[in-house]
Amino acid sequence: NSSHPIVVWDEPFFQGKRHEFSTDCYSTPERGFSTVLWGQGHCGFQGQQFVLERGEYPCWEAWSGSNAYHVDRMSSFRPITCAEHGRSQLLLFEQENFQGRRGELSDDCPSLPALGWGGSAVGSFLVCSGAWVCSQYPGYRGFQYLLESDSHAGEYKHVREWGSHAQTGQVQSIRRVQQ
Amino acid sequence: NSSHPIVVWDEPFFQGKRHEFSTDCYSTPERGFSTVLWGQGHCGFQGQQFVLERGEYPCWEAWSGSNAYHVDRMSSFRPITCAEHGRSQLLLFEQENFQGRRGELSDDCPSLPALGWGGSAVGSFLVCSGAWVCSQYPGYRGFQYLLESDSHAGEYKHVREWGSHAQTGQVQSIRRVQQ
Repeated sequence: NSSHPIVVWDEPFFQGKRHEFSTDCYSTPERGFSTVLWGQGHCGFQGQQFVLERGEYPCWEAWSGSNAYHVDRMSSFRPITCAEHGRSQLLLFEQENFQGRRGELSDDCPSLPALGWGGSAVGSFLVCSGAWVCSQYPGYRGFQYLLESDSHAGEYKHVREWGSHAQTGQVQSIRRVQQ
Repeated sequence: NSSHPIVVWDEPFFQGKRHEFSTDCYSTPERGFSTVLWGQGHCGFQGQQFVLERGEYPCWEAWSGSNAYHVDRMSSFRPITCAEHGRSQLLLFEQENFQGRRGELSDDCPSLPALGWGGSAVGSFLVCSGAWVCSQYPGYRGFQYLLESDSHAGEYKHVREWGSHAQTGQVQSIRRVQQ
């Protein structure tokens, strides 16, 4: 993706020193960056995760959404390579380890409750193809977690495997990652 | 939609006095509510708008997203009646009054820049069918604005007509409202 790099700045609103990266994976040595202009691909890092589609993110509020704790510095990022916006498929299960009631998605879903999914939690996920972002609240708000078909063999058996920083398995909306 | 009301509470986390409404339109007389449990339909009010799909919103962060100013009380809400998740169509124009370059959407778009839409602003919208939420930042983050086919005859000629509280016409992601 060298033609579509991620470009980051030291200071908000595209101020300060400019850094451009086109490598697959990068960790900043000392401190993160506070402004991100993403060329193509997406971002994820240990702890709290943020999926970034191409566009301009002038300040931390732009990428953090309504998360419960303030993160104004990103410390690592990488592209998501398995996104297949048109052919994504995801299985979700009521309980951990692929047990209990099962649901299937192949399109964006801004509200799992509106689909009839009982409760507001998901126990486990099986990603058949593509990459997905699941969010704590309806309308893609709140904490978000990345699910990839080429990670864990697409198997997310327990909330710990997708949301190490989450307090609960609460998931109320899910969407495909766009390539 | 009397079978799928909106239920609101005076205090966060579903505490305090409980109120249930199934009317098409409602304005709270003195003060808003700080917890919302939406049965079916959606919410919008003068000034800052929040589109709520069915689900649980235990606190203001859950519905407000990463908006620039803190709103912890809702003062009015109403259902969105024209949502057609499967058959939505939206035209967007580079300049106001349906001028300049034109784009067309019939599916969710988490990143207009990734589609090749130049710049980060939209000049005007024409809603052919359904209801849409456009957002300031990619991934449905930041300020959000509701566009409806049965309001303004679906014509949004200028940023003032969809985002009275917005500083700019910046729109980087757009999605259909789910019925």
